[in-house]
Amino acid sequence: MSLKNDRFLKALAREKVDVTPVWMMRQAGRYLPEYRAIRKQAGDFLSLCQNPELACEVTLQPLRRYAFDAAILFSDILTIPDAMGQGLYFAEGEGPKFRKVIRSAADVESLPDVNIADELSYVTDAVALIRKELNGSVPLIGFSGSPWTLATYMIEGGGSKDFRLAKQFLYDHPEAMHLLLDKLARAVTDYLNAQIRAGAQAVQIFDTWGGILSSAAYREFSLDYMSKIIGGLITENEGRKVPAIVFTKNGGQWLQAIAGSACQAIGLDWTTDIGRARSHVGERVALQGNMDPTLLYAGADAIRREVAAILKSFGAGPGHVFNLGHGITPEVDPEHVAVFVEAVHELSSQYHT
Amino acid sequence: MSLKNDRFLKALAREKVDVTPVWMMRQAGRYLPEYRAIRKQAGDFLSLCQNPELACEVTLQPLRRYAFDAAILFSDILTIPDAMGQGLYFAEGEGPKFRKVIRSAADVESLPDVNIADELSYVTDAVALIRKELNGSVPLIGFSGSPWTLATYMIEGGGSKDFRLAKQFLYDHPEAMHLLLDKLARAVTDYLNAQIRAGAQAVQIFDTWGGILSSAAYREFSLDYMSKIIGGLITENEGRKVPAIVFTKNGGQWLQAIAGSACQAIGLDWTTDIGRARSHVGERVALQGNMDPTLLYAGADAIRREVAAILKSFGAGPGHVFNLGHGITPEVDPEHVAVFVEAVHELSSQYHT
Repeated sequence: MSLKNDRFLKALAREKVDVTPVWMMRQAGRYLPEYRAIRKQAGDFLSLCQNPELACEVTLQPLRRYAFDAAILFSDILTIPDAMGQGLYFAEGEGPKFRKVIRSAADVESLPDVNIADELSYVTDAVALIRKELNGSVPLIGFSGSPWTLATYMIEGGGSKDFRLAKQFLYDHPEAMHLLLDKLARAVTDYLNAQIRAGAQAVQIFDTWGGILSSAAYREFSLDYMSKIIGGLITENEGRKVPAIVFTKNGGQWLQAIAGSACQAIGLDWTTDIGRARSHVGERVALQGNMDPTLLYAGADAIRREVAAILKSFGAGPGHVFNLGHGITPEVDPEHVAVFVEAVHELSSQYHT
Repeated sequence: MSLKNDRFLKALAREKVDVTPVWMMRQAGRYLPEYRAIRKQAGDFLSLCQNPELACEVTLQPLRRYAFDAAILFSDILTIPDAMGQGLYFAEGEGPKFRKVIRSAADVESLPDVNIADELSYVTDAVALIRKELNGSVPLIGFSGSPWTLATYMIEGGGSKDFRLAKQFLYDHPEAMHLLLDKLARAVTDYLNAQIRAGAQAVQIFDTWGGILSSAAYREFSLDYMSKIIGGLITENEGRKVPAIVFTKNGGQWLQAIAGSACQAIGLDWTTDIGRARSHVGERVALQGNMDPTLLYAGADAIRREVAAILKSFGAGPGHVFNLGHGITPEVDPEHVAVFVEAVHELSSQYHT
């Protein structure tokens, strides 16, 4: 099936486009009243993720309102540890939690391999259904959490302020940590390949917590495992390249190293100057980002000014996918998202003549 | 009075030392049982800050246990907004809060100038007393929060997860934000100069929240005001240079710009490779840091390994003050701090032959 809008895939391949493509991390989310309605219907968050029809519906919702150039699978980053039997749940008003936690080498050794086809068919079913419903309008992005990010939740038993337990485990039991990360990397590889086979046309690895590590520990415990995953991914499907995007929040100091992972694009948070990033790694990878999501609380003038500044910083030519520097937050006014998306398309055309 | 141990000041001046000097952010703090006893005696945290005798006592406590090469004034970063009438208080188990908040240009305009001698004499009295009690053993560091960091607390009314209100104010009312930052920069300059006159032999500006800004906003709303402050500081006192250290948490991407502020040293958090930082700015400034404070939860072997790795990354020669990459946390075992300090002195001598 031909793709009606392939700007996103072209930009990732650093090919010429008419305007800069744009999507938003968490674009299917709580800032949309229609999302909140479906979420209520589903019951809890996890039931929504596990219901392919409803996951498909919320994936498509933002595309009905805004001219986004890509859809992203609605799911959670913690589906793999859940499929390993860790017992993921969401306490209302709190973040994700696990009933079982990893606290010893023995805990790591007893973790089962995941059979993606059996355990995570609800995800691949959603991917297939979304592709069908998208009907070639825009490409679909699949995703997973990075091994290190998954490991932090599995060890801490949920989110954390200082990741004390995960880091203590890393520093006092590096071999057990490597075993855990290796198991996770193999599962993530299988998982992303299953999403690609089901129809995902690009994949993003969310390394939400890589940026809390020291520079050396980031390479050894996060980036190396993302590189391993990328080395194992299906690179072409349906006659098209399947690009991989690595997003390490707070990873702006390590762009050269990340570009060495063989990813096609690097996601940038808003603390990185995208022009400077381009001058460092723009010959090797495309760049995705990077407006501060908090700008969406400001007025239309401020949003347009910031979009213009980021486009100008990146400069002329291909290789830029516009995005926020992190996920959109629930309290944003949906009207502000319209201003954002329109500004990207309108103000970027001058850079693509 | 001659200084018995001047390693810290020599390292900041990038002069030859015998071993790398070391101190810890929040070295006078809750991880020490003797601190908790004095804190209990004082009542609340603010009463402890405002009592020069008790502030002096807790400043000296860590120096009785460990061979630190500098003392740092015990105080809070938010004394200036408090002196401006914002009503600082600490709710038990929560962070700092303000009774009054800044939400409009009018709020900014009505902020009074601070008369440091009147309003913050408890701080300068503590500085003078600590200097007397130190009796030349090690130098004393004075400090303040950065204007941007103070502004975030004044606008949010306390700490924040996403600094939504502070950023909204910045983006929608940039002129009012500049007026606020200018008022704060003038007050901080007066405040640090008063600390220097009272006996502080070096000063550090804690820019705890500069790293949550975009690269461009950091320069305009945080770094520029720190540069202004440094330009107004007393540069020599008692026949010695008075160095200024800028610590922007998450500022590792902006070291070249920070070095341009005319500071003598840059504080690094643990995400920055100190060897790489040295190769970028080591000819212009000294570097302070940068072990992950979470390492202090790990065992002695892991602590020594990490100290060795940081010393090796910095390499031979002067210009390094060892520190953590952020403040020590309350749950750390004081024995681990002893391992840390000893490791720095013992393992660094090879780099200073």
